[in-house]
Amino acid sequence: MENIQPLPSPSNPPSVGGVRVHAQHVEAVMSRAHHGGGWLLSGIICINILILGCALVSGSAFNSVAITAVHRQIFLIILLLLTMLWMLFYTALTSRKNQAILFKDSYAGPVWLKAGLVLFGLLSLLMDVFKIAYYVSYLHCDSAVKVAFPVVQAVFLFVQSFFLWTHAKDCVQLHTNVTRCGLTLTLSTNLVLWMAAVTEESVHQTEIPVKATPLISASYGDKKCKCSHSACDTFREAFYYLYPFNIEYSLFASAMAYIMWKNVGRIVEHHSRHKVKFCLKGVCLGPVMGIFLVVAGLVTFIMYEVDVLKEEEEEEEDKRNQALLIHFIMNIVIVSLMFLSTMIGCIVYRLDHREHVSEKNPTRSLDVGLLVGASMGQLIISYFTIVAMVATGARGYLNALNLSWAVLLVLQLGLQNYFIIEGLHREPFIVMQEAALHTNAHALQEHAEMSIEVECKKSSYFLTSGADKQSWKRRVLKEVCAFLMLANIILWIMPAFGARPQFDHPVELYFYKYTMWTAIVNIGLPFGIFYRMHSVASLFEVYLIS
Amino acid sequence: MENIQPLPSPSNPPSVGGVRVHAQHVEAVMSRAHHGGGWLLSGIICINILILGCALVSGSAFNSVAITAVHRQIFLIILLLLTMLWMLFYTALTSRKNQAILFKDSYAGPVWLKAGLVLFGLLSLLMDVFKIAYYVSYLHCDSAVKVAFPVVQAVFLFVQSFFLWTHAKDCVQLHTNVTRCGLTLTLSTNLVLWMAAVTEESVHQTEIPVKATPLISASYGDKKCKCSHSACDTFREAFYYLYPFNIEYSLFASAMAYIMWKNVGRIVEHHSRHKVKFCLKGVCLGPVMGIFLVVAGLVTFIMYEVDVLKEEEEEEEDKRNQALLIHFIMNIVIVSLMFLSTMIGCIVYRLDHREHVSEKNPTRSLDVGLLVGASMGQLIISYFTIVAMVATGARGYLNALNLSWAVLLVLQLGLQNYFIIEGLHREPFIVMQEAALHTNAHALQEHAEMSIEVECKKSSYFLTSGADKQSWKRRVLKEVCAFLMLANIILWIMPAFGARPQFDHPVELYFYKYTMWTAIVNIGLPFGIFYRMHSVASLFEVYLIS
Repeated sequence: MENIQPLPSPSNPPSVGGVRVHAQHVEAVMSRAHHGGGWLLSGIICINILILGCALVSGSAFNSVAITAVHRQIFLIILLLLTMLWMLFYTALTSRKNQAILFKDSYAGPVWLKAGLVLFGLLSLLMDVFKIAYYVSYLHCDSAVKVAFPVVQAVFLFVQSFFLWTHAKDCVQLHTNVTRCGLTLTLSTNLVLWMAAVTEESVHQTEIPVKATPLISASYGDKKCKCSHSACDTFREAFYYLYPFNIEYSLFASAMAYIMWKNVGRIVEHHSRHKVKFCLKGVCLGPVMGIFLVVAGLVTFIMYEVDVLKEEEEEEEDKRNQALLIHFIMNIVIVSLMFLSTMIGCIVYRLDHREHVSEKNPTRSLDVGLLVGASMGQLIISYFTIVAMVATGARGYLNALNLSWAVLLVLQLGLQNYFIIEGLHREPFIVMQEAALHTNAHALQEHAEMSIEVECKKSSYFLTSGADKQSWKRRVLKEVCAFLMLANIILWIMPAFGARPQFDHPVELYFYKYTMWTAIVNIGLPFGIFYRMHSVASLFEVYLIS
Repeated sequence: MENIQPLPSPSNPPSVGGVRVHAQHVEAVMSRAHHGGGWLLSGIICINILILGCALVSGSAFNSVAITAVHRQIFLIILLLLTMLWMLFYTALTSRKNQAILFKDSYAGPVWLKAGLVLFGLLSLLMDVFKIAYYVSYLHCDSAVKVAFPVVQAVFLFVQSFFLWTHAKDCVQLHTNVTRCGLTLTLSTNLVLWMAAVTEESVHQTEIPVKATPLISASYGDKKCKCSHSACDTFREAFYYLYPFNIEYSLFASAMAYIMWKNVGRIVEHHSRHKVKFCLKGVCLGPVMGIFLVVAGLVTFIMYEVDVLKEEEEEEEDKRNQALLIHFIMNIVIVSLMFLSTMIGCIVYRLDHREHVSEKNPTRSLDVGLLVGASMGQLIISYFTIVAMVATGARGYLNALNLSWAVLLVLQLGLQNYFIIEGLHREPFIVMQEAALHTNAHALQEHAEMSIEVECKKSSYFLTSGADKQSWKRRVLKEVCAFLMLANIILWIMPAFGARPQFDHPVELYFYKYTMWTAIVNIGLPFGIFYRMHSVASLFEVYLIS
């Protein structure tokens, strides 16, 4: 219902006649878009695929008798093939017609989303290669579907990444009903893939510590199915290590498909997006501290990874605890500094009062929704940690550190969300300048001969009187944004590349039992990683607006 | 962000000057509403309470060592007291000032929601009374918190029902930030209560069949805590029987608190809601068939309840299966008839093409969201049933019937959602009449002397030419709506008053294991019940529009 929201450019109020013509145009499209009820049908399709997928995935994970992984994979293969067929159909259709894509949403499919998609897509491809190599060696005694699924998935990764890369900004006007259904098919396929990957990863992480048996017998317990070459264990280790990237890939693809679905049938007027150059002039303390933090974080992260991995072979409890200690302290330092700087930013907001942007902007609403939604992932993990730590009394320095880390994270997430959302809704500095100029120009219009002079002074005007008053507040905000960006980057790197203190420090694991805790971490952490990347992008926008 | 959406009346286009004044007014309120960022803060508070509650509830349910029910209940008591304090504060504030509530949203807090709230509130009160009676008899050897919690909850039921009954339509303009936070506190308290009740009910239903021990030892296994009077078992049975109503109450209260939160700071113009009288004239087949269905449903429902309850005492497998057979067949008949009539309605929609209402209406959007969201509950149960039945081969007539019931339900839910949403978005018949009249009047204006005559003919005009063309389509739509309303009522009565074929026919219970299946049913079914009530209300609106 809300898919048709034209964005009128606020600085040039259109004439009355223009409004009428435009309104008729919108109305015509609106009735066309509504007529088939495609948005409703596509929503119903999406919900049905999702719930059926949910039932199949949980049935195959927790009930090994009647529904096996093979059934689930056949269902997934069908979904993948259907989605690919639709994508090829769409690409063929739009490439044949010249006028197929009249409008593009310049806010949709930003660079960080596309880059993340390709990065995680490549790593998922690697995962599929390892999977194929692993299951091929069991072909003589296991189902061929287990090889077919990664093959189809690898092809799907190619097709989908190409599709999203080229069409992410489209506002489709032709065949809107079919396109809507196709996009929800893409969305639900990715979400079902995400569910399947999360469940598989959780089951895998549960069965190793519980059974503590060699890897092969854990997978092929009763069948006595032997691997036909020697590298099986390595392949299996490798592809389970790559699962988190695949989970992340599905989330990214879902977000992009959802944005495309919202944009179907939308008419975007050529919106004069204020081209603000990114310049670091005058901003120094924030970036320097941020870079220092990133380097320090990287060093401790590498130490942590080396020590924790080494421990698994040699069972040195002390070294492992020391690595955890350093990791916890480093994280607490980072989060505390972020909290303090966000606090400063919020105080500056109070001092530097600006109007809110009243213009309706669906992409911004979606951005805010994704930001808040993704932060829930990290919040859930933190609150479960807090409850477990408080309940067990937080004895020992590691538990105390873990507890304070979780509490600080909750505070930091809440405050950072506030800072970003408030920042995105404030009027950009450049618009304020223009508005002030218009007022000034209006006052001076009485002396008609002076108006040209005023235009010339435009550039120098704010460098003198206006800029002085605003400059220190703007500079502080920019420093805060730059620092937060870098801090979020290091908080992204650590979990994205394998730091899992949630499992290495096993108090919560024992407290909530294996299945529950792995499920919480495997659902929450990918959202947490997505949140960090998303906040870097949003902070960048806040930096430009300030 | 979307809380300020004035509803312009479509029939009287306001003058340009009026628009300007109005726009300035809205802008002023908008900046006031945005200034404090109350909506953001209240959202953050809500998310935090919810996630902390989730962690505590699941921690206390699945880990009996460190966190017990007492900890959870202390947390809930604190939440309840805080919410009540705020409600009293709000009531005192608004009753003191005359101008506190300037605007009321006439769509908010409809009768069915209020009536449901009071009905389920009374039954929840009864539950609390039984709980107090039960736990008082264990006071000598168990925590006093277990008595304190139902006492506080009983008081809360009074205060909240009164608060929601009197203030559900308010569009608060004073202290908007505090009010927003208070309302999200109410919302999250109700949702945490809902989570706690769902979990407790699931754990209860799981422990009885697994342990198969007498009720008292299941609850006080190791402590050897004896009940001080003889009616303990009865009280316990009684209050667990009333749990579903309490779950339903929390859902209703959450929905109302959410609508109030959306309405804070909103400016509702006096919207001339078309008063359409409900009349059944000319509509006959639908209501008659519906009433017949309700009576038949009630008879089989009572038979089912009697036979299934009797079976628990006498273990007569045959009689139980016969009762299930009748229940399944009755449900299949109802759902098939509903499916067919909805199909007819959708075909009439195609034939009787009308414009969509383009006016923005937040209450309608919320209604649609609640409808689709609530239908997910029933959909989840149905899909899980389908997967279980297909996987086990659907052997035996009961399984085959169960499978067909689930498939039909999925189809019926999808189609009914389509029918209702499409119906709510179509232009009301009365507006079409007016629009046609305006066009006619405009054409005749050239003959100025005739315009008065036209006004006089207004009433008779559509009774002759226009009405003839439209009448049979309108009549069919009204028949369909009336039939669907009654059919939804019987489908509401059966689960709301205790029919649980999901547990009485135990195939899914064995397939998905106890914990998982009880969790699915206990989360899904209350939403399913809510869905049926909500669709009756929405169908009533569609009936009036047709």
